[in-house]
Amino acid sequence: MAKDSYLVGLIGSGIGPSLSPALHEREADRQGLRYLYRLIDIEALGVPPEAVGELVRAARDLGFDGLNITHPCKQLVIEHLDDLAPQAEALGAVNTVVFEDGRAIGHNTDVTGFAASFARGLPDASLERVVQLGAGGAGAAVAHATLTLGAERVTVVDALADRAADLAGGLNRHFGVGRAAAATPDQLARLLGSADGVVHATPTGMAAHPGLPFPAELLHPGLWVAEVVYRPLETELLRAAGAVGCATLDGGGMAVFQAADAFRLVTGREPDSGRMLADFAEVAAESSVGEAV
Amino acid sequence: MAKDSYLVGLIGSGIGPSLSPALHEREADRQGLRYLYRLIDIEALGVPPEAVGELVRAARDLGFDGLNITHPCKQLVIEHLDDLAPQAEALGAVNTVVFEDGRAIGHNTDVTGFAASFARGLPDASLERVVQLGAGGAGAAVAHATLTLGAERVTVVDALADRAADLAGGLNRHFGVGRAAAATPDQLARLLGSADGVVHATPTGMAAHPGLPFPAELLHPGLWVAEVVYRPLETELLRAAGAVGCATLDGGGMAVFQAADAFRLVTGREPDSGRMLADFAEVAAESSVGEAV
Repeated sequence: MAKDSYLVGLIGSGIGPSLSPALHEREADRQGLRYLYRLIDIEALGVPPEAVGELVRAARDLGFDGLNITHPCKQLVIEHLDDLAPQAEALGAVNTVVFEDGRAIGHNTDVTGFAASFARGLPDASLERVVQLGAGGAGAAVAHATLTLGAERVTVVDALADRAADLAGGLNRHFGVGRAAAATPDQLARLLGSADGVVHATPTGMAAHPGLPFPAELLHPGLWVAEVVYRPLETELLRAAGAVGCATLDGGGMAVFQAADAFRLVTGREPDSGRMLADFAEVAAESSVGEAV
Repeated sequence: MAKDSYLVGLIGSGIGPSLSPALHEREADRQGLRYLYRLIDIEALGVPPEAVGELVRAARDLGFDGLNITHPCKQLVIEHLDDLAPQAEALGAVNTVVFEDGRAIGHNTDVTGFAASFARGLPDASLERVVQLGAGGAGAAVAHATLTLGAERVTVVDALADRAADLAGGLNRHFGVGRAAAATPDQLARLLGSADGVVHATPTGMAAHPGLPFPAELLHPGLWVAEVVYRPLETELLRAAGAVGCATLDGGGMAVFQAADAFRLVTGREPDSGRMLADFAEVAAESSVGEAV
């Protein structure tokens, strides 16, 4: 009677400026789907991150087809799901929930999104020695992505030494011993000196957290620099890296490909990621500066 | 950035066959709105009618713009709302909730819907003496509608004598002493003998409750018969009334106009009720026999 319809939401904190509604809805419109993407901001609701379980159950009961999950709920949500896709389970982080027959299944499209963006934007990058800043939810995803892409060794750097060690340990169990290591920021000068590239996966450089994640002097032309932050698209880190002559990758591609993969999981339909990349450029230019999501 | 979008749901029990999604979404499509109408069936969810409060709060938190409320929650929902439109407050029944700045406001478009349908379908009907069967939520709404349309006296008949007396008492307080009375079904023969018309507002005649609400012998050609049940459109009562020569009004118009009024409340836009009536005829013909909603 009615055409296929999809109700999707994003649960997270401070997500008002998210571009996800536009990315999903524009692609759905082109495919002739009835598609509504709602922002569910726990900060605006005044509920703690732990409320994510209750919100997921409510979304299931009220007819949502799927959810995206972002900071600070990507790990907290796991205990509230009925099942995890193997990748999400390995990561310990979920950014997409799909409701199937009343069950909530967790996925992670950050990893596939970053991998697709990297393969597209830095196709010739050497992956022998990769340094990654940040061992949070996004960090876990991009480390899985670079190792899946064939990185020989990823060194995860985080000010929280335990968090870096935990992530490296998990990566070694999953990808094989010696593929990952942990370090703290004081070791960055040495690590970057001999690295092929650096992946930045902390919030530094977002509008709310301006600045560089490490001194610009540590950059050198032999280093590629891949950014996870996408608002602004050109972070201070990318600007500094470009000035030194590094090959760079902004966070927009990851944002688009994670959305495209979530769209595919929710609808079972193939998105046109090329058109979604064009949408992203357009809506990012239109929207005012805000938080990265 | 995105076009205006609206998320609406219907909370009730056994609402799977509801035509409301099609009525709302088709009109929204013509107006170029992004509009999604979801069914939230407490029977399918396995939760009691009292869960309506929790569902309303969840809908508000998850970004719904409005809700329709149907059996058995039209009265139970009231205590969970932040404010009531005067009509809903007078009725003691809510079929539409609109979220405005985080507040849940209750309305009742059953009364305006029935009034519009009656004025359109039985424009010459005499309203001196009206007998109404049924004093539930729909009954309260249509009694308000007929009195608002100018009925001199409405006698509410219900097997639950207290329920009929309560409704009649409320109507007299609202519309003036003597405008309403209460009776029990054993008095129907006398009441219908001297009535101008009868409004049927019980579930009898729905697919799940087949049959006539009173013996066909009580019908006479001087009586108009207005039906609230709309699935099937031609109930046994309307068939019997037509055979006797009564002027009749089916429940479809009320279903359409209550939806049109809810659409207006949620979107602030004027629906085209003529096009919605045509939609109703089309989707009612397409859909299989089911419950009235």
